[in-house]
Amino acid sequence: MAYEPFIIGIDLGGTNIRAAVVDHIGEIIAYGHRQTLANEGPRAVIDRMIDAAREVMAKAGLAQCQVAAVGVGSPGPLDIEAGVTLSPATLPGWDRVPLRQLIEEGLGIPTTLENDANAAALGEHCFGAGRGVDHMIYVTVSTGIGGGLILDGTLYHGATGMAGEIGHTTILADGPLCGCGNRGCLEALASGSAIARRAREIVTSGVPTRIANLANGNIDLITAKLVADAASEGDVEAEKILSEAMDYLGTGMASLVNLFNPELVVIGGGLAHIGERLFGPVRHIIKQRAFLAQAQAARVVPAELGDHAGVLGASEVASIALFHGMGNK
Amino acid sequence: MAYEPFIIGIDLGGTNIRAAVVDHIGEIIAYGHRQTLANEGPRAVIDRMIDAAREVMAKAGLAQCQVAAVGVGSPGPLDIEAGVTLSPATLPGWDRVPLRQLIEEGLGIPTTLENDANAAALGEHCFGAGRGVDHMIYVTVSTGIGGGLILDGTLYHGATGMAGEIGHTTILADGPLCGCGNRGCLEALASGSAIARRAREIVTSGVPTRIANLANGNIDLITAKLVADAASEGDVEAEKILSEAMDYLGTGMASLVNLFNPELVVIGGGLAHIGERLFGPVRHIIKQRAFLAQAQAARVVPAELGDHAGVLGASEVASIALFHGMGNK
Repeated sequence: MAYEPFIIGIDLGGTNIRAAVVDHIGEIIAYGHRQTLANEGPRAVIDRMIDAAREVMAKAGLAQCQVAAVGVGSPGPLDIEAGVTLSPATLPGWDRVPLRQLIEEGLGIPTTLENDANAAALGEHCFGAGRGVDHMIYVTVSTGIGGGLILDGTLYHGATGMAGEIGHTTILADGPLCGCGNRGCLEALASGSAIARRAREIVTSGVPTRIANLANGNIDLITAKLVADAASEGDVEAEKILSEAMDYLGTGMASLVNLFNPELVVIGGGLAHIGERLFGPVRHIIKQRAFLAQAQAARVVPAELGDHAGVLGASEVASIALFHGMGNK
Repeated sequence: MAYEPFIIGIDLGGTNIRAAVVDHIGEIIAYGHRQTLANEGPRAVIDRMIDAAREVMAKAGLAQCQVAAVGVGSPGPLDIEAGVTLSPATLPGWDRVPLRQLIEEGLGIPTTLENDANAAALGEHCFGAGRGVDHMIYVTVSTGIGGGLILDGTLYHGATGMAGEIGHTTILADGPLCGCGNRGCLEALASGSAIARRAREIVTSGVPTRIANLANGNIDLITAKLVADAASEGDVEAEKILSEAMDYLGTGMASLVNLFNPELVVIGGGLAHIGERLFGPVRHIIKQRAFLAQAQAARVVPAELGDHAGVLGASEVASIALFHGMGNK
């Protein structure tokens, strides 16, 4: 019988830490999670990541020596070569934290670090919606917009490991200011926070809308989810806000379809749960804006792995490093 | 002594046909050109391509059996697998012309077909500004805007050979109509024809500018070159038109820098001859709009091969097909 290693995938998010023991065919053998509590600082968070990994090892009945590798997906930007975080927006105070080394020392298992969106793209490519596809764009639309590029069958990193910033391509050069300092980024127009910001503007300007009722008149409670709920109840303003944002998302995807000529565009993240209100306009705008041949080649589908994309992708990151001897140390 | 094959590169453009015999280190041994005269139809043009190839073989003193392969760069869209043109905008009436087969039969030498911008990108990568670089974006800015992507050391084709349409990424979602039917494409904002169109609008609206004088009052004579000349003479309106277009070009490049994390952005095409009036704003806007790490990683340089990029790139296309046994037949 061939040696089939177990791998631990850890998904570090601004809100949750998720960990799983994954086998060689991408089955989750054990799963656990913790709150991130990022405000307690890097050391406390990393200890919780190590705890979560130990918990899933124990659940799976594995000793340390039975786990071949650990993969960690973390919010970027990262220096993946050095295994170090570079002040991620969702992890305040994490400037140059040697995350890879600290996890590796804590668990005593070789560890590889990857950008969270790249890890999720790998997860969907190996075990989810993108199985068997060589040219795939993965986009995650939630508070922000991230992405990962599977080109010619492998994850594309670029010159210094920073490729794939789909959320920070300019769609409307004179558009609203983005968190990155640029104007008119896809993220500033089509993300959950962009939708919430637009809804707050509408409510503040006194336009009558269900959004205000659902938020009990407190604009701080307005989220993209709440706007989607109001739209589902038939609120015209909410529908307008959502459809404008999804048209921008489609515009961004059409550019990527012209640029990458992918077979598949996989859309995940919290906002993908609104379903046809997202996929309908995105497919329509790609057809309208992209070249016919490229548009016809590109299917647009929902991500399949949900909350598990991160841990499965992180495990695949470790698996690739293991088999290709290319651990990023 | 090892066998060092000679290769013929043919560059088919809307205006000129160029052909060259190229040796294994990218030296041009013999060079020739013809007018395309596209209005005479595919058969006449293809005969001129074959004539041009025979002329350079004769100049180089080579018999047919001494030429290992022929590479052809043609305006797209193409079906490169089938070796067939798909109604290129600059070659009216070329719908499904079996260009690869007709050249191969005409010369009796194995032939490979590639998109012209991809061929030029390969030329710059192998023999020009991009030597030794693994992650390079090539952009050609002339009447239109085309491009080619060198990712992880090789030309990226996408799922159906149509990747790299840099000119048709959306920069300004509500911007001017593009030839492709989309709105606010980079090509509609920053190409030579976009600059000329904007200048015609300004002149027609009666704003006083040197552009009108240089065109002898005939707006049909207004070209991007003429706008650049007026700007060189200090004309404020011409400077405004150019600088707005180059800011859009920079915006497009900043998006690509965030997306691809390249080491190098190579800009060629007729408009690159205006030099600092192009490269200054493009470098400035990348610094302003892209992420710091990505912007720092990406040098922006002029193409080096000029009119020879096409034939050198076409020869490299044939060379790759020859050595990898991947001729697109």
